[in-house]
Amino acid sequence: MSSSPDPGRPSQKAIFFDLMGTCCNWLSSLLPLLQSCPPHPSMQPMESKVRQFAIEWREGFFKEVHARFERREPAEDIDLTHRRVLDSLLKERGIGLEIWDDGVRSALVRQWHLQVAWPDVIPALEKIRHEGNYFLIVLANGTTRLQLDIAQSSGIPFHMLLSSELLGLTKPDPSIYCKAMELTRLPPNKCLMVASHLYDLEAAKSVGMETIYVHRTTEDVDVKIDLDRQHKYVDWYYDGREGMDRKGFLDMAERLISR
Amino acid sequence: MSSSPDPGRPSQKAIFFDLMGTCCNWLSSLLPLLQSCPPHPSMQPMESKVRQFAIEWREGFFKEVHARFERREPAEDIDLTHRRVLDSLLKERGIGLEIWDDGVRSALVRQWHLQVAWPDVIPALEKIRHEGNYFLIVLANGTTRLQLDIAQSSGIPFHMLLSSELLGLTKPDPSIYCKAMELTRLPPNKCLMVASHLYDLEAAKSVGMETIYVHRTTEDVDVKIDLDRQHKYVDWYYDGREGMDRKGFLDMAERLISR
Repeated sequence: MSSSPDPGRPSQKAIFFDLMGTCCNWLSSLLPLLQSCPPHPSMQPMESKVRQFAIEWREGFFKEVHARFERREPAEDIDLTHRRVLDSLLKERGIGLEIWDDGVRSALVRQWHLQVAWPDVIPALEKIRHEGNYFLIVLANGTTRLQLDIAQSSGIPFHMLLSSELLGLTKPDPSIYCKAMELTRLPPNKCLMVASHLYDLEAAKSVGMETIYVHRTTEDVDVKIDLDRQHKYVDWYYDGREGMDRKGFLDMAERLISR
Repeated sequence: MSSSPDPGRPSQKAIFFDLMGTCCNWLSSLLPLLQSCPPHPSMQPMESKVRQFAIEWREGFFKEVHARFERREPAEDIDLTHRRVLDSLLKERGIGLEIWDDGVRSALVRQWHLQVAWPDVIPALEKIRHEGNYFLIVLANGTTRLQLDIAQSSGIPFHMLLSSELLGLTKPDPSIYCKAMELTRLPPNKCLMVASHLYDLEAAKSVGMETIYVHRTTEDVDVKIDLDRQHKYVDWYYDGREGMDRKGFLDMAERLISR
């Protein structure tokens, strides 16, 4: 084809990202708001109890999503799930509507839409985006509005957002990963899934994606991370927990760009 | 709610953008490649004939999309439509496969995926994005892969890409605008449609969106722009044609941010 034009486009690949927890620190957004809520004995001492409350809220949310998935029910608006779990946790602690009223609860549910990126995420994604060989795509449960709010409040430079609402499928249904790949017109060996939840990567690997586990302080809290056992579906591990010398996404970016 | 937390989130709005022609100069990407194709008498003199050929290719594409829409047929992969129109135009000019072979034609079809932004687009969208009050969302006919390629090659900082392929609907079907608004959880009076095609804005206005027409050198070439007559569905007009003192998207951004 010597006489043919050559647009010189590099072969493209796609990185799919779980959003909440993996890319964003939902806890740091939630804590100040929880601490500003009306005081209650069950939330004292504030520093430890409020943190514990937030983590239980997140765990309760995951349990609900997984239970719906097991029952093959369609995904629910994340705001409704968050509100139901919140109401249930407050009831357990004896905090009634006369103490944390509807306005307080609604503001807390809305706060999940405003999240900051973990410090390693934006510099890493800017590097990858600048290099130009990967599409950076969110693939996460939740609504499109949630993803838009988080993308905007965090400022993470994704190319595109794919929600369970938009695709009509819920992770870890293998079909959602297949649908995402089909939309990019890329085969599984050109697609990576990045998550801080093992169940997500297990499903992504089942359809042939390359998988990257990024360990986060707030995620998989009750999961025993045994990468020797999980090596069949975790291709790469990066430590992105809070603390010194843990570069998470930055190490990942370096490897993806250099290979 | 004096005791309630207040996340202080500004009320959000969404701007939906047509992509090709409105945000991107497809012609400047296509011309060098067309000029590098094997020479043929029907393409001489090169400067005017090649440009005319590109404009006819674009018009033929629009005719095909509109005809499919009128016949209520589902959207087709844009690469297939582009190839069919190309083959037909080359046949008219007597350029057979022995002159522009399959490789030449495939490269030309692929080239539509690589586009540069009009000069006013990136600075305007960066300003709007920085201000933080609008989601910037592509809403355009075509495939998701096409939109990903154009978003990446042009570098335009959209939050999200909605294609006719992804939504299962084609512009100007009013349902596609409704579906896009539903995904953002925003009412029509918080949503704007920006396009350089009058038919697009007429449909967006029919579902209650605010509409902005940006005039482009390469678009609506055969359409008589009579904004007095079209004022019922064009709320704002900006001149974004090539030339001095026409700031198009920049004037639009200034107005959106200041109001």
